[in-house]
Amino acid sequence: MNTITNIKLLNEKISELKKNGLSIGFVPTMGYLHDGHISLIDRAREENDIVIVSIFVNPTQFGPNEDLTSYPKNLKNDSAMCIKHKVDILFIPNNDEIYPDDFSTYVDVVGLSSILCGSSRPGHFRGVTTIVLKLFNLVSPQNAYFGLKDYQQFVIIKKMVRDLNLNVNIIGCPIVRESDGIAMSSRNVYLSEDQRKQATYIYQSLREAKRKIKRGERSSAKIIDDITKRLEMIEDSKIDYIKICDPYFLEEVEEITEEVRILIACFVGNARLIDNISAKSKWIKAIIDQTKG
Amino acid sequence: MNTITNIKLLNEKISELKKNGLSIGFVPTMGYLHDGHISLIDRAREENDIVIVSIFVNPTQFGPNEDLTSYPKNLKNDSAMCIKHKVDILFIPNNDEIYPDDFSTYVDVVGLSSILCGSSRPGHFRGVTTIVLKLFNLVSPQNAYFGLKDYQQFVIIKKMVRDLNLNVNIIGCPIVRESDGIAMSSRNVYLSEDQRKQATYIYQSLREAKRKIKRGERSSAKIIDDITKRLEMIEDSKIDYIKICDPYFLEEVEEITEEVRILIACFVGNARLIDNISAKSKWIKAIIDQTKG
Repeated sequence: MNTITNIKLLNEKISELKKNGLSIGFVPTMGYLHDGHISLIDRAREENDIVIVSIFVNPTQFGPNEDLTSYPKNLKNDSAMCIKHKVDILFIPNNDEIYPDDFSTYVDVVGLSSILCGSSRPGHFRGVTTIVLKLFNLVSPQNAYFGLKDYQQFVIIKKMVRDLNLNVNIIGCPIVRESDGIAMSSRNVYLSEDQRKQATYIYQSLREAKRKIKRGERSSAKIIDDITKRLEMIEDSKIDYIKICDPYFLEEVEEITEEVRILIACFVGNARLIDNISAKSKWIKAIIDQTKG
Repeated sequence: MNTITNIKLLNEKISELKKNGLSIGFVPTMGYLHDGHISLIDRAREENDIVIVSIFVNPTQFGPNEDLTSYPKNLKNDSAMCIKHKVDILFIPNNDEIYPDDFSTYVDVVGLSSILCGSSRPGHFRGVTTIVLKLFNLVSPQNAYFGLKDYQQFVIIKKMVRDLNLNVNIIGCPIVRESDGIAMSSRNVYLSEDQRKQATYIYQSLREAKRKIKRGERSSAKIIDDITKRLEMIEDSKIDYIKICDPYFLEEVEEITEEVRILIACFVGNARLIDNISAKSKWIKAIIDQTKG
């Protein structure tokens, strides 16, 4: 594996790869890698000649009172995991090169960026889209891999790519979970053992909601009410949002008649955890088949 | 010459050109081509294997009370000029493909975009940077050519390219003028014969200012005052701004001790005309040489 920490060297390497007509699969991360990241890397490994992983804790996507300075790090372990999973290039840029002093250009996906997580984290998605666009320009990937745990991020990046005519496929990969169901996240280390146990209620509440919708429940209000009750059982927790949205534009749905995405953000202690699940009535498929027939 | 009006065909063509390792020079325009544009095309022709010109009157860079609907058009003539000057591909996209109904992603060069022309035309440069980025992504040029008449645009695009790590050289080309000195612009057709004559005062005032600075005048206030008096002699005119700025960050300069850019925007009748010139004292070079010695 080639570890590259400056842009000039990366540029040279990328030109060489492109000259040789090799396809590049890209996995942008903030490091402290877990099995969620690894699933993206493995998928990229299967589908591309070259796999590039970046590690960059991007300051522009953190709010002033968020966990930028305490965000967990373990470069040595990250590097070992990348080697084990046959990453070709690990790109670890430094902040001064990514954001020179007079940096001032930002990308905004208007609308989508100010709902859900964007509403409680103003500027967060502007930071995400800006760094992702910069990394795409640096890495020139054919394919880029994102975990669906950050479902809104995935939708926003797909939108940016379409709107800006970027020549990269955005591939969303399934959420990877711990054995107790909690979605893997670098931020799970912020949880105490007790909090960790209770945080499993988040995914449990999503599973219950999915079951109810499958069986025919159509009222979003009812489902959200059930999830709220369950999450309120977690000690020292604060619900940020529970929303039921269409999966493409993330518009809130009142009556569930199509496939939906249920999205949760919830503080457990100091950790802000997010999770989501797709849900649809078992009748929907039958109805779609019928209208086609 | 190959005229392409849809994105899919352009993509196919560009992949083919890139596969063959050909360099692409790009000249983005809003059409109604004049010798200013031609100078960009000729320069691109000299420096690249392939020359691509786009014609797109970009709605997002026009304000609600501006001249979007009346902007002059002459596609037949534009096409003939492109053929004559050996353009390989003329790209004329349609608005629905460039801005689909739910389009919502914008690029902002914060700061630089809200001064000078950006101050009187809010949103203008956001429209410019967004369309230029989209076109860069579609065309994948090695080199892109812009006229220095739109000096602020040139500075902003260079900034965007650096900040977003775009892999394209931005080449600013000298202002092309009519025989009477007026800077070539598609908008000059808005001028009556009388207005046209008086509009030459704009460039005359810039030349006078340049001479005074060369001879040692250091006070921006004094220079601006002289230009103001000259422009006020134009009937039916309204000065938008007269500024003396450093050439890189466009910060206003009070005392002229380095090279500066003098920038003017002035309405003559309904036409908003812009022009600019670089100026420096003849002593500056001597002083620089001295400090080096």
